[in-house]
Amino acid sequence: MNNSKNVLRYMFGSGAISNLSTILNNIESDSEYVIYYIDEYFKNSSVLDFLPIKNIDEIFFVQTQSEPETSNIDHFRDILISKNKNKPKAIIAIGGGCTLDTGKAIANLLTNSGNAEDYQGWDLVKNPGIYKIGIPTISGTGAEASRTCVMINPKNGLKLGMNSDFTIYDQLILDPNLTKSVPRNQYFYTGMDTYLHCIESLNGSYRNSIGDAFSHQAISLCREVFLSDDDMMSDKNREKLMVASYLGGCAIANSFVGIVHPFSAGLSVVLGTHHCVGNCIAMNAMEEFYPQEFKEFILMGKKQGIEIPQGIATDLDESFYKKLYDSTIIHEKPLSNALGANFKNILTYEKVKEIFKKM
Amino acid sequence: MNNSKNVLRYMFGSGAISNLSTILNNIESDSEYVIYYIDEYFKNSSVLDFLPIKNIDEIFFVQTQSEPETSNIDHFRDILISKNKNKPKAIIAIGGGCTLDTGKAIANLLTNSGNAEDYQGWDLVKNPGIYKIGIPTISGTGAEASRTCVMINPKNGLKLGMNSDFTIYDQLILDPNLTKSVPRNQYFYTGMDTYLHCIESLNGSYRNSIGDAFSHQAISLCREVFLSDDDMMSDKNREKLMVASYLGGCAIANSFVGIVHPFSAGLSVVLGTHHCVGNCIAMNAMEEFYPQEFKEFILMGKKQGIEIPQGIATDLDESFYKKLYDSTIIHEKPLSNALGANFKNILTYEKVKEIFKKM
Repeated sequence: MNNSKNVLRYMFGSGAISNLSTILNNIESDSEYVIYYIDEYFKNSSVLDFLPIKNIDEIFFVQTQSEPETSNIDHFRDILISKNKNKPKAIIAIGGGCTLDTGKAIANLLTNSGNAEDYQGWDLVKNPGIYKIGIPTISGTGAEASRTCVMINPKNGLKLGMNSDFTIYDQLILDPNLTKSVPRNQYFYTGMDTYLHCIESLNGSYRNSIGDAFSHQAISLCREVFLSDDDMMSDKNREKLMVASYLGGCAIANSFVGIVHPFSAGLSVVLGTHHCVGNCIAMNAMEEFYPQEFKEFILMGKKQGIEIPQGIATDLDESFYKKLYDSTIIHEKPLSNALGANFKNILTYEKVKEIFKKM
Repeated sequence: MNNSKNVLRYMFGSGAISNLSTILNNIESDSEYVIYYIDEYFKNSSVLDFLPIKNIDEIFFVQTQSEPETSNIDHFRDILISKNKNKPKAIIAIGGGCTLDTGKAIANLLTNSGNAEDYQGWDLVKNPGIYKIGIPTISGTGAEASRTCVMINPKNGLKLGMNSDFTIYDQLILDPNLTKSVPRNQYFYTGMDTYLHCIESLNGSYRNSIGDAFSHQAISLCREVFLSDDDMMSDKNREKLMVASYLGGCAIANSFVGIVHPFSAGLSVVLGTHHCVGNCIAMNAMEEFYPQEFKEFILMGKKQGIEIPQGIATDLDESFYKKLYDSTIIHEKPLSNALGANFKNILTYEKVKEIFKKM
């Protein structure tokens, strides 16, 4: 039975980001400086004008072309140590899942010795991290609410986070103004991350009434956003999707994902596919496992005029399929949640290859 | 814009209470003893056998015939001080809204000087309270999730809580086994507290997408519990109502109630009516304000064969109506949320009296 930890505080609403300064002033700390991790997308954006950045603060722009690697995290940590800025008042992450996860991982590494890869797994983090503030700029990954920060370790082909109560944000600022300029494709793919979290959770064996309640509400909001006649990116719908993302994160904190996420992780590790579009590509091959949800997913894509990339794993060398199999099947918790302890009898090498060939 | 604070941790599921010992062991504190506030209903119950009570702990049984008064809270605090047990490791409250609120109020008073009545209002508590664990044994009040602990001050006729982030529980144990023996009427009345929180929030002007999402899901669960053909107290439905109560509390943390709660507060202060049955009695007179929800409320009562007391305020002396008016109209925040800043133009003395006469 989980003892679920919540994000301590959340501020929700248009313009919420203007309260960052007040929030920082209320944190008791011996340090005055803060460390920002900001998606490089905002490097020359007016969003920066809303931030109360001081001279003593440090700003890092996070590349999000590829997903966070354990060595990136170690590198960011090493820069802070070399500057003697390893005990900031707060770490503030502003961006999508990659950036939010970067902030979480560094906050943990600054108070725990060793390297990022040492903490990939469940409850390996020993000490509370630095106080951290998450400010999502795209909705759907649930990174703002979850107890993980996903990283890829290319050395062993593992895409896995520091799953820990210490990974959870202390403060969220949920400001739907920040998602206005998201490209439409990306908005859809990322929104589908929430949808898939929830349908995977509801189709698993590890269910409970509280996880189900979060999932049902998040799915209901996704339907309102992606199946209504309003623009999926209207002010109201961006608000709703931001709430859905948070609730989807709460759902996953009380449950597990299923089959889509492990296959998507395989695509990320082997082919460098981004998490959210990877989920959509994987879902496109999941009709037999999630038939009703597959139909609804296709309908949402059609309604919004979004193309899911196809053919990216249709015709690869055998060595790639072997790697894809290994990187998928390693995710025992979600796969056994979806298919039972003997999931390897269903997901044989040939079956996994057949599924990837549909992508 | 709220900076909403969450309950720090929650453990949900049948048998969750057996984890209390482990939870207590994980709290870092200089003290070893804990203070229990337990609904007197459990005085000779087997529930006590599940509690890891030690000789050094203190147990108080809370009477719940009448709602908590500020002087009760001061009295409980004074006993602890006289025994030099005013800095416990934790305060544990086990019961319904009255008991959960008692635990919250005492946890605050042990670290803040003065008396309970000094803190009735918004954000008057200055210091964090004692670490506190809430274990609801009936579902619906949302006391387990909310930032208030409602008390009646008979001196000034005020029914109002210590509304503070410090009032929020650090840990919840949500164990639906504990609601098995609740009398059916009480189960219904208390469940309706959640339903009414959410319909009042959704009909108010102080709305936002996150409060709405919690409200919608809580209402949806109430419908499943009270309108399905299953017993409203089946294992599954008691689980659902426990989740609904928690989510209803989260909804109210992001919004305000409306007209029902102030009228119910009037009944409590003047006639000693309990909160949850008082809400139902008030809702019975609210057809003109909440027509759709009134219909659904009546349907739920009929489906479950529950009688709402009637005639309790039909034929009173004028002096009672004057007191009822004063104790109702004092609740400016919810009444202006429902009816606008000029709510007194709608709720004139004659109108308020007419509404009470329907109860």
